[in-house]
Amino acid sequence: PLRGKHDERSLVFADLTREEYSQVQQYMLKQKDLDISTNQITKPSENFLFLIDLSLPKKADTLAYLDDGKGKPTREATAVVFYGKSGYVKEYVVGPLPNPKYHRDVTKERYNTDIPINSRPVTIGEYAVLFEFLEAEFFSKLQKLMKESFDVDDTKHLNAFEQMPRGVRSGDRSTWISFMRDMSGMYIHPVGLEVLVNHESVNSSQWTIQRVLYNGQYFDSVQALKEKYDRGSVKKILYTKSRDYGSLKPKTKPLQVGPQLFHPEGKRYSISDNHVLYMDWSFAFGLSSLTGMRVFDVRFKDERILYELSVQEAMSVYGSVTPGMGLTKFFDTSIGIGRFAHQLVRGVDCPYEAAYITTYRYIDAPNPIKFEDSICIFEHNLGQPLRRHFSDFFHNSYGGMVNSALVMRTITAIGNYDYMWDFIFYQSGSVEAKVHATGYISSSYMMEGSLNYGHQVAEKVLGNLHTHFINFKVDLDVAGVKNVFQTKDMKFVNTSVPWQPGHHAMIPQLVEEQLNTEQEAALRYNTKTPRYLHVASPKVNRWGHPRSYRLQVFTFAGDHLPESEPEERSMSWARYKVAITKQKDLEQTSSSLYNQNNIWSPTVDFSKYIDDNESIVDQDLVAWVTAGFLHIPHAEDIPNTVTVGNGGGVLLRPHNYFDEDPSIHSADGVYINPS
Amino acid sequence: PLRGKHDERSLVFADLTREEYSQVQQYMLKQKDLDISTNQITKPSENFLFLIDLSLPKKADTLAYLDDGKGKPTREATAVVFYGKSGYVKEYVVGPLPNPKYHRDVTKERYNTDIPINSRPVTIGEYAVLFEFLEAEFFSKLQKLMKESFDVDDTKHLNAFEQMPRGVRSGDRSTWISFMRDMSGMYIHPVGLEVLVNHESVNSSQWTIQRVLYNGQYFDSVQALKEKYDRGSVKKILYTKSRDYGSLKPKTKPLQVGPQLFHPEGKRYSISDNHVLYMDWSFAFGLSSLTGMRVFDVRFKDERILYELSVQEAMSVYGSVTPGMGLTKFFDTSIGIGRFAHQLVRGVDCPYEAAYITTYRYIDAPNPIKFEDSICIFEHNLGQPLRRHFSDFFHNSYGGMVNSALVMRTITAIGNYDYMWDFIFYQSGSVEAKVHATGYISSSYMMEGSLNYGHQVAEKVLGNLHTHFINFKVDLDVAGVKNVFQTKDMKFVNTSVPWQPGHHAMIPQLVEEQLNTEQEAALRYNTKTPRYLHVASPKVNRWGHPRSYRLQVFTFAGDHLPESEPEERSMSWARYKVAITKQKDLEQTSSSLYNQNNIWSPTVDFSKYIDDNESIVDQDLVAWVTAGFLHIPHAEDIPNTVTVGNGGGVLLRPHNYFDEDPSIHSADGVYINPS
Ligand SMILES: [Ca+2]
Ligand SMILES: [Ca+2]
Ligand SMILES: [Ca+2]
Ligand SMILES: [Ca+2]
Ligand SMILES: [Cu+2]
Ligand SMILES: [Cu+2]
Repeated sequence: PLRGKHDERSLVFADLTREEYSQVQQYMLKQKDLDISTNQITKPSENFLFLIDLSLPKKADTLAYLDDGKGKPTREATAVVFYGKSGYVKEYVVGPLPNPKYHRDVTKERYNTDIPINSRPVTIGEYAVLFEFLEAEFFSKLQKLMKESFDVDDTKHLNAFEQMPRGVRSGDRSTWISFMRDMSGMYIHPVGLEVLVNHESVNSSQWTIQRVLYNGQYFDSVQALKEKYDRGSVKKILYTKSRDYGSLKPKTKPLQVGPQLFHPEGKRYSISDNHVLYMDWSFAFGLSSLTGMRVFDVRFKDERILYELSVQEAMSVYGSVTPGMGLTKFFDTSIGIGRFAHQLVRGVDCPYEAAYITTYRYIDAPNPIKFEDSICIFEHNLGQPLRRHFSDFFHNSYGGMVNSALVMRTITAIGNYDYMWDFIFYQSGSVEAKVHATGYISSSYMMEGSLNYGHQVAEKVLGNLHTHFINFKVDLDVAGVKNVFQTKDMKFVNTSVPWQPGHHAMIPQLVEEQLNTEQEAALRYNTKTPRYLHVASPKVNRWGHPRSYRLQVFTFAGDHLPESEPEERSMSWARYKVAITKQKDLEQTSSSLYNQNNIWSPTVDFSKYIDDNESIVDQDLVAWVTAGFLHIPHAEDIPNTVTVGNGGGVLLRPHNYFDEDPSIHSADGVYINPS
Repeated sequence: PLRGKHDERSLVFADLTREEYSQVQQYMLKQKDLDISTNQITKPSENFLFLIDLSLPKKADTLAYLDDGKGKPTREATAVVFYGKSGYVKEYVVGPLPNPKYHRDVTKERYNTDIPINSRPVTIGEYAVLFEFLEAEFFSKLQKLMKESFDVDDTKHLNAFEQMPRGVRSGDRSTWISFMRDMSGMYIHPVGLEVLVNHESVNSSQWTIQRVLYNGQYFDSVQALKEKYDRGSVKKILYTKSRDYGSLKPKTKPLQVGPQLFHPEGKRYSISDNHVLYMDWSFAFGLSSLTGMRVFDVRFKDERILYELSVQEAMSVYGSVTPGMGLTKFFDTSIGIGRFAHQLVRGVDCPYEAAYITTYRYIDAPNPIKFEDSICIFEHNLGQPLRRHFSDFFHNSYGGMVNSALVMRTITAIGNYDYMWDFIFYQSGSVEAKVHATGYISSSYMMEGSLNYGHQVAEKVLGNLHTHFINFKVDLDVAGVKNVFQTKDMKFVNTSVPWQPGHHAMIPQLVEEQLNTEQEAALRYNTKTPRYLHVASPKVNRWGHPRSYRLQVFTFAGDHLPESEPEERSMSWARYKVAITKQKDLEQTSSSLYNQNNIWSPTVDFSKYIDDNESIVDQDLVAWVTAGFLHIPHAEDIPNTVTVGNGGGVLLRPHNYFDEDPSIHSADGVYINPS
């Protein structure tokens, strides 16, 4: 029952194709003066083409194209180059595709600052050098200890799990690396060995090992550890084999397949390029290497509701007595959320019958990489009514409708954690953005004081307490781009009861407010927030009420890092459950590729978007929503955290947007009248 | 893959059978001195056998039977008699079944008070008299007005929608009745006519009409309205036909059936009598006419986790400028939640393939009534992984498992609202209790000041603002009955960083606390609550941590009625998000059949359970959990509220209860290793 038609104009939001990535790559390589390499193991001291991704056209141009028949915006790419030779990072806009003719340095325009080279993430090229360095300067110098404590020799090794940020002040690039057993689920097999490597210089010859932690004891150098170990003045770890508790191999044979979804009359949605039709819905989708899944131009019955709904950042702050995890603050966008959207497993990650979509990315790679089945789209029967009523007074009848909704999903496995991202489109006109966490927790080797930071979850293993904060960008356009931000709530008012003279009662009343500036509308997590939050239009529905969408945030967030901390500005979006800004093309994201590694001087500090405290009355508004949960790991996180209860998100609900529930027009409605 | 065996001992929790209801009824009728009628339209002035329901055996006796091989507890029923002739209500325990030999008045034992007759709900017998009264004293005296304003004549009538509580002080039984068009979804068709009927006396000859509200104008008598109306000094309502916006008839023809669930290899659960087996789970279930759905003796891998999980109450407080809804506070248990668990519609209310269970009830009826298909049980594929991890560093592998869970559901349609109640049993050892609201909102006719209390949702119709508060009883027995109540949370602590001399940082730490008394553990809604709440055992898991279940409450509750209000004690459970009491057989429920109609002197005031502030250390604990949401009705509530976003509940999660995630032993696990 497709109500709409596919629209090629959705391609304006489409990710770059394999060919387009290559076109940009070839164009950049032709700029001999830039002296760029695309070799995967380019050294930090050289210039490396790290990333090519779609450069989104300006919103005004895109709306003119979509709504007013204006010309198609120029298709452009963003190219990110790490200039190891010069000590900085540059971002270029390259265009027009498919035949690039220009590149423009947009670094200053986008970030108002230069980007020092140490703001970059660690590339595969740098890891290669790092692992060589560790072999030469660390493992090979501690062979006796390594064998006795960890059974490491020429054939067996430990795996590295690195912590971020890399230091304590701007310019630092000193990384604590924890070593893990080379077993499946290494993240929950710490061995009690951690090392602080200074790799600040792009020349690895200047790298040093600054500190070592072994079995709870600190050493200023590898040499100091070796000498004391050999002398016997060190509390030793004696190797013992470990249970394979991190394994995900089933311990029971499959017996009987569980319930499955099927489509007795075929699929009820359609996908053409990056355009999706489902019942009254249509939207375009994409997958940014950095920020992950996103949809654009989301319409219901042909009317645009969202210009953009996108994942922005997934951040965690850890606690630990150990240096690995002690200061850890992970920003997944700086590693690349979409980058790790791998192939989905049919029947587990998504239903067998889902549509699976192949994507291409160009990030930290010599060529565009194909990711088969990295997005799934399916209609799900939620196993419950969307609405129903049974009447046994006066009129005996039944009306109802099952809740079938369209789900778009990616799952991104960034190191230990797997985040499942869902956008759900309901027949009642609601859209939901949800995230669930699964995969492995991070852990540390037990030492004195460990239990202040979590629970023991395996032999000598502490599951470290941490927060999960997730940021979504919600660019609602409610009946046009000019909107206001409204709140609604209740209050009890002492009221004289007209039909009961002399009697007073506390009666709940509606409280409505309009928040007029960005700072008023920045709703902090630790304050009481009105229960209903609305992006509303000055236009009214049939009953005279402003047409609006309500933002209902599902969250169990822990505490946000105090603002006194120098790392806080890099994650200042997490101060707010919901913050509203005036839309700007240059405020495209709440975080950046560089926020992790220059956490102390962030290229994007979200709080600056609202520092100018602009009016948000009758403006194009963007809501930035933060959901999350506090995670105190427990034995049941072994081997993997389960999705049940470990999630959050935001539901966007029509509230006087329509004149009645649009699902009453669904063909799925059922009506029974016994008379 | 059934792991356990059915256990007949679950019958100790089973609802009375049709035969048992009849045995109790016949026994009671034989007690000639009680002078009881079972006629459905027994007058208020007579004695009426209102309710027969299971009387739960004492917990200690039941545990002795289940765990220690002691004898089966005597099977007994509760019988509730409304003594119109004497002016009180009595509750009896009748036993032993199947051949009752005794009845014992337990009113005082259960409630510490007598129950005055006006505490009773309005029976079908009383409604019959009430409608006759309205016809004679109201409609027949206003024929001209009725025709002109509402098109009411000999063939056409209005429907009544009554408000509660019935008055403003103890002993009152004066009910505001709002009149609605005789159309489907009458709840959203108010006509602007309301009448206050005093039916305090059991003799209807003494009933009076105390006030009338017509088109926003109050009148002290029917006569006064009639005279002023005839004189033309009243602002009149002129009848116009109304759109059929309350109809649930589909407006679109079915086109293509949506996705369905099927079991390619058969069902993976088993139901025998009231005993259910599913994977590692087993439990007994029942359906109380008053409180609704409940499960007992819930075990995972043969170990009891819950003695009881049950619905207790669904309460709403409304706001309105009109008398109908102005003071309205609905308590559904006083009407009977389980009473309205009607037949479920296959494919909408539950999947086609679900198991449907027939129940019997005896409430306000001359005989036990059969309710076909009033409970459904099914395994649902939630369309997402319960857990998964994809590894691309060091080890390339994938392990995961789809989230298939068992759902037990009833849907209770109490007047306008339909509540969908779900208990969900996950393979990770979690149990969830959830409720969603759907059906019709309550509404009022627009008059001056209406918009302070909600939004207009149809012509002249206000959707009135209200709260939904739902109470669950959660009698966890964590590794035995002796438990403690623990909280966990995080705090940032300024910490000197050992590996970075002179450097301090705010690092999150774990904060654990044990709450030792009932009052400490009564966690009010308007205060900051620790993020993790645990019922814990003194026994520890393999890693030395107390075995516990965590209570994670999903709620969007509005404000609770201020305690200054005389009606508040009747709903004092709603003060608390979670309250913990020492288990007592005489503290079986948080509300009662009588709380609605004697709201000012409640037979059960939950706050009294914690007034004695008993120790909750190493005691048998019961958690009382309140979830809910604030409902500000909007156009999309017409015709029906949708379930999406309109719900709440509690997730019970193992937290160091096991030594690892039990789902790792599920036969549903999938593992892929490309090497
Ligand atoms: Ca601004
Ligand atoms: Ca907008
Ligand atoms: Ca007590
Ligand atoms: Ca207990
Ligand atoms: Cu976590
Ligand atoms: Cu409601």
